[in-house]
Amino acid sequence: MTDERWFPSRLTMLSSGECYELLASRSVGRVAFVVDGAPSVAPVNHRVDGDDIVFRTSPHSELGRSMAHGPVAFQVDEFDDFSQSGWSVLMQGYAAYDDADSVPPDARPRPWAEGVRGLTVRIRPLQVTGRRLIGV
Amino acid sequence: MTDERWFPSRLTMLSSGECYELLASRSVGRVAFVVDGAPSVAPVNHRVDGDDIVFRTSPHSELGRSMAHGPVAFQVDEFDDFSQSGWSVLMQGYAAYDDADSVPPDARPRPWAEGVRGLTVRIRPLQVTGRRLIGV
Repeated sequence: MTDERWFPSRLTMLSSGECYELLASRSVGRVAFVVDGAPSVAPVNHRVDGDDIVFRTSPHSELGRSMAHGPVAFQVDEFDDFSQSGWSVLMQGYAAYDDADSVPPDARPRPWAEGVRGLTVRIRPLQVTGRRLIGV
Repeated sequence: MTDERWFPSRLTMLSSGECYELLASRSVGRVAFVVDGAPSVAPVNHRVDGDDIVFRTSPHSELGRSMAHGPVAFQVDEFDDFSQSGWSVLMQGYAAYDDADSVPPDARPRPWAEGVRGLTVRIRPLQVTGRRLIGV
C-alpha cells in the first residue's frame, strides 16, 4: 500500500503490540461503517477483549443496525497541537452481534451515556495498523 | 433517524453554526472513506473553507485515490475521561479534487507531516450533525 498521509521521515509504524496497548489506553474510539455505500462515523466507549474490540449500542440505532453485516473500521488517535505530533491506530475487520455474557464483567464496555444499549457488538480484526508522527 | 448512541437525557444536538465552530477549532480531523466496500479512516490536517472541508494528501495514497469519487465523511471530536463528557461533529458529503489556488493562502491546510501532498481535496457537505454529551 502506498501511503503518504504522513511522510516516512518523521513517521514510525507501530507494532501490533503497541497498537493494542494504544487501543486499550483510550475510553472512546470511533466506529466507521457503511450505510447505503456512504461512510459514517460514531464515537463509542469500547473495550479490548483478546484481539477484538467490544462495544455496546442500541439495536435501533443506525450504528446498531449496520453492525449486523459488513466490514467496519475502528479508530483511536491522539494529537498534540503544540508539538504537531501524535499517533493513530486503525483496526479493519468485521462486526457481529455478540452474546454479552461472553465478555467477563470487568472487560465489558461501560458507555458514558445513559440509556438502554442492549446490543453488544464485537469487531474481529482482519488488519490492525498504527502510525506515530514524531513532533518537530 | 433513531439514534441512541448517546441517550437524549444528557445529550444536546448542536446547531450548524456550533458544528462549524468546532470543525474549525481542531487542527486534525478524520476522513472516513470506502475502499472496495470497506470503510477506512485517516487523520488529516484540515481547514474549513466556507461550508467545505479542505485538506491535502498525495494522489498516490489510498486516501488520495479514493477521493476521486464517492461519498466520504469527516469527523472531529473531543472527550474528557474525568467528566465523561465530550462532543462529536460529523460531516457527510462528497469529496473532489480541488484546484489548490481556489483556496486563499491563509485558509490552506498545513499538514504537520513533511512530504509532497500535491492533491488538494474538498469535501462538500450534504449533512453536518453534532452532539454534545453533558458530563455526570
